[in-house]
Amino acid sequence: MSKTRIGIAGYGNLGKGVELAIRQNDDMELAAIFTRRDPSSVKPLTEGAKVYSIDSAKDMTDDIDVLIICGGSATDLPKQTPELAKLFNVIDSFDTHARIPEHFANVDKAAKESGHLAFISLGWDPGLFSLNRLYAESILPNGKSYTFWGKGVSQGHSDAIRRIEGVKRAIQYTVPIESAIEAVRSGSQPELTTREKHLRECWVVPEEGADLKKIEESIKTMKNYFDEYDTTVNFITEEQFEADHNSMPHGGFVMRSGLTGDGEKTHQMIEYSLKLESNPEFTASVLICYARALARLRSEGAVGCKTAFDIAPAYLSKLSGEELRASML
Amino acid sequence: MSKTRIGIAGYGNLGKGVELAIRQNDDMELAAIFTRRDPSSVKPLTEGAKVYSIDSAKDMTDDIDVLIICGGSATDLPKQTPELAKLFNVIDSFDTHARIPEHFANVDKAAKESGHLAFISLGWDPGLFSLNRLYAESILPNGKSYTFWGKGVSQGHSDAIRRIEGVKRAIQYTVPIESAIEAVRSGSQPELTTREKHLRECWVVPEEGADLKKIEESIKTMKNYFDEYDTTVNFITEEQFEADHNSMPHGGFVMRSGLTGDGEKTHQMIEYSLKLESNPEFTASVLICYARALARLRSEGAVGCKTAFDIAPAYLSKLSGEELRASML
Repeated sequence: MSKTRIGIAGYGNLGKGVELAIRQNDDMELAAIFTRRDPSSVKPLTEGAKVYSIDSAKDMTDDIDVLIICGGSATDLPKQTPELAKLFNVIDSFDTHARIPEHFANVDKAAKESGHLAFISLGWDPGLFSLNRLYAESILPNGKSYTFWGKGVSQGHSDAIRRIEGVKRAIQYTVPIESAIEAVRSGSQPELTTREKHLRECWVVPEEGADLKKIEESIKTMKNYFDEYDTTVNFITEEQFEADHNSMPHGGFVMRSGLTGDGEKTHQMIEYSLKLESNPEFTASVLICYARALARLRSEGAVGCKTAFDIAPAYLSKLSGEELRASML
Repeated sequence: MSKTRIGIAGYGNLGKGVELAIRQNDDMELAAIFTRRDPSSVKPLTEGAKVYSIDSAKDMTDDIDVLIICGGSATDLPKQTPELAKLFNVIDSFDTHARIPEHFANVDKAAKESGHLAFISLGWDPGLFSLNRLYAESILPNGKSYTFWGKGVSQGHSDAIRRIEGVKRAIQYTVPIESAIEAVRSGSQPELTTREKHLRECWVVPEEGADLKKIEESIKTMKNYFDEYDTTVNFITEEQFEADHNSMPHGGFVMRSGLTGDGEKTHQMIEYSLKLESNPEFTASVLICYARALARLRSEGAVGCKTAFDIAPAYLSKLSGEELRASML
């Protein structure tokens, strides 16, 4: 069987993760890396990997089965995914939840008009967490759902801190509050405020002579980002930052506390959790696995835009239906 | 929109659970209960519910959209599901893992020949646990999977104890060993023996004058059931049994500990767990949710046998694709 030829558009942390995930799946191969930078400045981790300007992608449509677009959700993906879906079968990890319907419509139109298949908003949230919300809420219609994130790095919050005057480097961890998780597990279906669910833990390297009190105040009162949370701010040296804050862990919990039975008094609890040492590597592993599903669904004639909700689980596995039933059911 | 008309074949704990789950889903209605007992001896929980002999099911094929077969896996389902799949679209919870391929083949043949759709082996294991094994193993190909069950009642093990001379009543709880679960969570990918994963806890009401030592010995040395486990046997009175052992809790954990990244050194952990106060009520909730999926897939023309692996998650929800993307992705 021929391998699925993967193209990577965008070679940051996620793109590198996809490159590494391809190595773990022998039915996949890295066909090309596309970048907006000077291709000669990009040094792939894979010997012999080819790097091209993103502008030349349009000339390589015959060489790529699935293009995984590894840009950011704020400005890159809303433009890139619909554009590239005109040329390729594509996958992205668009994660601005509120704008998913609009993104879906744009990508669906581009993919249908050009006869391509596109999967959007894959990864773990949106992605695996969304799947678990759907399964759990469908199974337990009388219940309450909870999502906790962390402990993990929030890129958006880290960026927000870096924009404050006097901040040289910064990282923000979202920390789920254990007592809140335990309250959910008890089956009591608590109403939890934003402040009761997560803490925000900030580690900041200040510029020399910066006003630390002012930085701390600016962080803690920042609208939408920090004002609704209990936030701690820690000032550290650049050496400490390098030593302790150079990885990108993340994870979280999706929980559904439901009631069944006569009078709906029987507690049932479904919990899904991830503990990830590397968020981009894990997200990349999800994307590659869905690239397999995409190649198969495309070979069956599917076009347009789909999400994790639309894809039968069996498409994700290398095993046949027969093998899956014998080994995993 | 017209409701999906559900038939229940077999009115034990699971059948009652299905009856109660229908109440929680306003797109479902209870059309009929079929029993092998004298129908007049069956008292449904739902006022006005109609009870018929299973023999008259063949005359009611126009009244049932989905028949949920609530028999046992040992002897009932291997016969009932293929036979009833000739007449109805059916769902079962066949859970003898080793015989699933054979059961699938029999049901698939019957359903295809008669133009029906059948879902087998639904519930939580097989079912939701299987799904989680598939998703997790597809996403993290380099890793190790673990399934722990309990704390919960094993019907098979309870039955085995009841067959011992001098035993009046008995119940067996499978108990996952917390230290083993913690070892898996650590990412160390331990090799765990059967004995290291679960304890077996037995509560026995002896007949008057029974030889307790002999009962305990018979349980602990019973081949395939108890000999490979650390087993505790507790003798109690019938009153204690009634007071403390009259519910059917269960649950468990599916875990995947995987490695990603350059040199495959990054730990990633996926964990799915259920904590159920009533195993049959929860299983019934899963079956009803898949009845919705069945009705939809059948209306699209699908026939033959399918498992949870073959069914796209969106089919399980009452919400439209648009609503799902806006609210749950």
